[in-house]
Amino acid sequence: MPVSLGELAERFGCELIGDPDVSITTVGTLGSAGSDALSFLASDAFKEQLPSTKAAAVVLQPDDASGAPCPVLVSDNPYAMYARMASAICPAPIYAPGIHESAVVAASATVAPSAHVAAHAVIEDGVTIGENSYIGPGVVVGTDCTVGNDCRVLANATLVRSVTTGDRCIFHPGCVIGSDGFGNAMTSEGWLKVPQLGGVRIGSDVEIGACTTVDCGAIDDTVICDGVRIDNLVQIAHNVHVGEHTAMAAGVGISGSTRIGKRCMFAGHSGTVGHIEICDDVVLLGKAVATKNITRPGAYAAMLPAEEARTWNRRVASLRRLDKLQNRVSELEKKSK
Amino acid sequence: MPVSLGELAERFGCELIGDPDVSITTVGTLGSAGSDALSFLASDAFKEQLPSTKAAAVVLQPDDASGAPCPVLVSDNPYAMYARMASAICPAPIYAPGIHESAVVAASATVAPSAHVAAHAVIEDGVTIGENSYIGPGVVVGTDCTVGNDCRVLANATLVRSVTTGDRCIFHPGCVIGSDGFGNAMTSEGWLKVPQLGGVRIGSDVEIGACTTVDCGAIDDTVICDGVRIDNLVQIAHNVHVGEHTAMAAGVGISGSTRIGKRCMFAGHSGTVGHIEICDDVVLLGKAVATKNITRPGAYAAMLPAEEARTWNRRVASLRRLDKLQNRVSELEKKSK
Amino acid sequence: MPVSLGELAERFGCELIGDPDVSITTVGTLGSAGSDALSFLASDAFKEQLPSTKAAAVVLQPDDASGAPCPVLVSDNPYAMYARMASAICPAPIYAPGIHESAVVAASATVAPSAHVAAHAVIEDGVTIGENSYIGPGVVVGTDCTVGNDCRVLANATLVRSVTTGDRCIFHPGCVIGSDGFGNAMTSEGWLKVPQLGGVRIGSDVEIGACTTVDCGAIDDTVICDGVRIDNLVQIAHNVHVGEHTAMAAGVGISGSTRIGKRCMFAGHSGTVGHIEICDDVVLLGKAVATKNITRPGAYAAMLPAEEARTWNRRVASLRRLDKLQNRVSELEKKSK
Repeated sequence: MPVSLGELAERFGCELIGDPDVSITTVGTLGSAGSDALSFLASDAFKEQLPSTKAAAVVLQPDDASGAPCPVLVSDNPYAMYARMASAICPAPIYAPGIHESAVVAASATVAPSAHVAAHAVIEDGVTIGENSYIGPGVVVGTDCTVGNDCRVLANATLVRSVTTGDRCIFHPGCVIGSDGFGNAMTSEGWLKVPQLGGVRIGSDVEIGACTTVDCGAIDDTVICDGVRIDNLVQIAHNVHVGEHTAMAAGVGISGSTRIGKRCMFAGHSGTVGHIEICDDVVLLGKAVATKNITRPGAYAAMLPAEEARTWNRRVASLRRLDKLQNRVSELEKKSK
Repeated sequence: MPVSLGELAERFGCELIGDPDVSITTVGTLGSAGSDALSFLASDAFKEQLPSTKAAAVVLQPDDASGAPCPVLVSDNPYAMYARMASAICPAPIYAPGIHESAVVAASATVAPSAHVAAHAVIEDGVTIGENSYIGPGVVVGTDCTVGNDCRVLANATLVRSVTTGDRCIFHPGCVIGSDGFGNAMTSEGWLKVPQLGGVRIGSDVEIGACTTVDCGAIDDTVICDGVRIDNLVQIAHNVHVGEHTAMAAGVGISGSTRIGKRCMFAGHSGTVGHIEICDDVVLLGKAVATKNITRPGAYAAMLPAEEARTWNRRVASLRRLDKLQNRVSELEKKSK
Repeated sequence: MPVSLGELAERFGCELIGDPDVSITTVGTLGSAGSDALSFLASDAFKEQLPSTKAAAVVLQPDDASGAPCPVLVSDNPYAMYARMASAICPAPIYAPGIHESAVVAASATVAPSAHVAAHAVIEDGVTIGENSYIGPGVVVGTDCTVGNDCRVLANATLVRSVTTGDRCIFHPGCVIGSDGFGNAMTSEGWLKVPQLGGVRIGSDVEIGACTTVDCGAIDDTVICDGVRIDNLVQIAHNVHVGEHTAMAAGVGISGSTRIGKRCMFAGHSGTVGHIEICDDVVLLGKAVATKNITRPGAYAAMLPAEEARTWNRRVASLRRLDKLQNRVSELEKKSK
């Protein structure tokens, strides 16, 4: 759907410098955008591409406006402004209301008339699907789940049981929400399964990545608050609480009963041990594992970056001689007294 | 199904201190249990919640009995005793025998009359499904698999091919058992796929987590022994052997042909390289990777805990100067002679 | 299908030492092969098993030929030669052309007449499936995907949208290709989703493991080149480029916009941060994370191997005293001047 720069500027409250009649039909990167595409500049790393861009227009910060060879849309947060405009230019697909004839919907389930249930989806007993929500092909929405309005549960995702979501949530393909927590009691005959009886409560505007797993609570619920963003292949164990607007990159693992604050950011493959608390506004850098409560906002780290293997092997050897080195220094100190 | 404390005590062989006629209809944590709920105390961390609990009764150790404001069920292993009682109070759902009309079952497959095959499940050639087993919606049980009795293969799980299980196993949603191992031979034209021809043999009472992958053997089988518990997002490569009652938390990765003993415990994101042996009763702590045989039971570790990034960066810098520090100390030693 | 040693030798251009009429019907390891099985010796670790093998014949290097108690097939690359022969002896299943009656195929999709679409597969609008390709049970091939010839998309895998593949690719069960990248813009109201509009371009002879996720590009495509091999539970973020014949073991994570060269090898749980470049022929060892460009081929490492927890705890303590140790050495140096 073509849209003019003037319309974009007006609709999103953005200053336009340049011809308002230029027509936009798609988006593009500074390097690859054509003459019908909107682009953006949100990081200094791409600044050098600005002067030679072939884009129809660029969303950028006031300071960068003079460097563009084309019309610009000026915003203090060009990445967010681009996101809004891109959603208008390339809107998400709209699904016609209705239940595909191959879908299996339990008699006791309630599917809003405006919802779309795709081929081979399975909706079990006691489920509610809200207005305008999309249940993708192969999705299973298990017993007693409630999906809010305007949600998208994408292909082959599974809401296992007793999962409740707010509105506008997205569940990416292959994710599993509400699987049993890893509760096992040791006995003389081996492990005994501890029944996992809680549910999962998910707020609004939550996005959960492909093949990510969120376990149900053991007794009380696992809780994911409003605005949380979780990437692919993340594990959220039973009874974890994730605070509003916290974001977790791929491969993160959060152990059971840990309580995570608001606006935290977990980088790839980071995580926490169980039964601890992480306060608001904590950033865990890549692969770092929090092993105790964190009570002070800020960045936490624990990763040693990759080095050439030869160099690395020397470091490991040095580290293993560190005890001895301490002793040698103590000896020298004694002598020098 | 309400049950009285007296019935619970008798059925599970547990000492009851208090009114045997109190009726239990659910379970709860010490903090959230209501007057119809059974709770438990199995960790000192929750002891302070005992005096104020509103639970109908608490399962606990003899030493803790006097601190409860309610009837108590006394056990030396209160967590396991609670697990047994919770299974009786809140039993797992029972599925009516039969094959859903939308399921596709190969003519050459044998499904026990007492088994339940849910909507859109696919049962391929040569498969056997045992008595009382549950095959969930969207599950694929591939060619020549044998599922034992009383098993549960949950939504969208895949048993790829030639997977054999014992009884009472649980496969959580999205797990993939029997996928090809990562066998590639290097040639001058690039990687050549090495056929993965073995199967997966799984014992009884095994539980495998959501989105966990267990590869088939290259020639011989991959083997998971009785009582093994595997959490979500774990990778078990081809020809791995996991001994009885070993437990693995989320994110663990076991490389090919590694042989793991009995009663081992692998914490989150730990793992092993390939072609090694881990003896019985080994505990691998979080993120630790065993890089050679472990022949002595005990705990093994390798994780540096997260610290404030500033502190951490200083440590990394120190570590990188360690070589030089060694040299400086050697210099000093020479001088001091 | 039984085949004689003479036929194998001739077909694969391999020297045979021994009786050409010996009949082979299966394959086996040196330790478990029976008298109708072909085995191979490709690693010194198994050399001691050669003299006592019961195999009908063994594929091995010239130097090892004299140690075998049976006919041998001599090759400079016995693992690759075994792979070729095993594919002939135990061929992959052949699926009859056709679309299962329970599959749902959009009217606008094109499925080659020789392709097989299994039970409960879903093929959406604008999809093309090439000659002889196999679409497994429960698979979803989303809008505008193009699957090449001779591909296998296995059970419950999902190609989300705008995924294009070359020929002879294999997608293992549960993998998700083309899911949204993790693009979020921070605003004063929380995270704003950045539309993920690119696709995924996959070359020929690519294999992608079970429960692995490959995100679509944000604007341009994510690219996986010819001959790439990716194991299970790997994350490839948006706009990553993976060069020809690169291999990644289970648990690897590649962050957004990173460009990886040809013939690289990533060991288990290794990875990279985003927006960097890794040159050709780089080996990242287990758990190592590349945090900046790598411009020199070779091996890179960062993992501290697991040690007994007691020993490890001492190392951590030493590391934490390293700052002080530096100071103590500086003190001593001052004194010694």
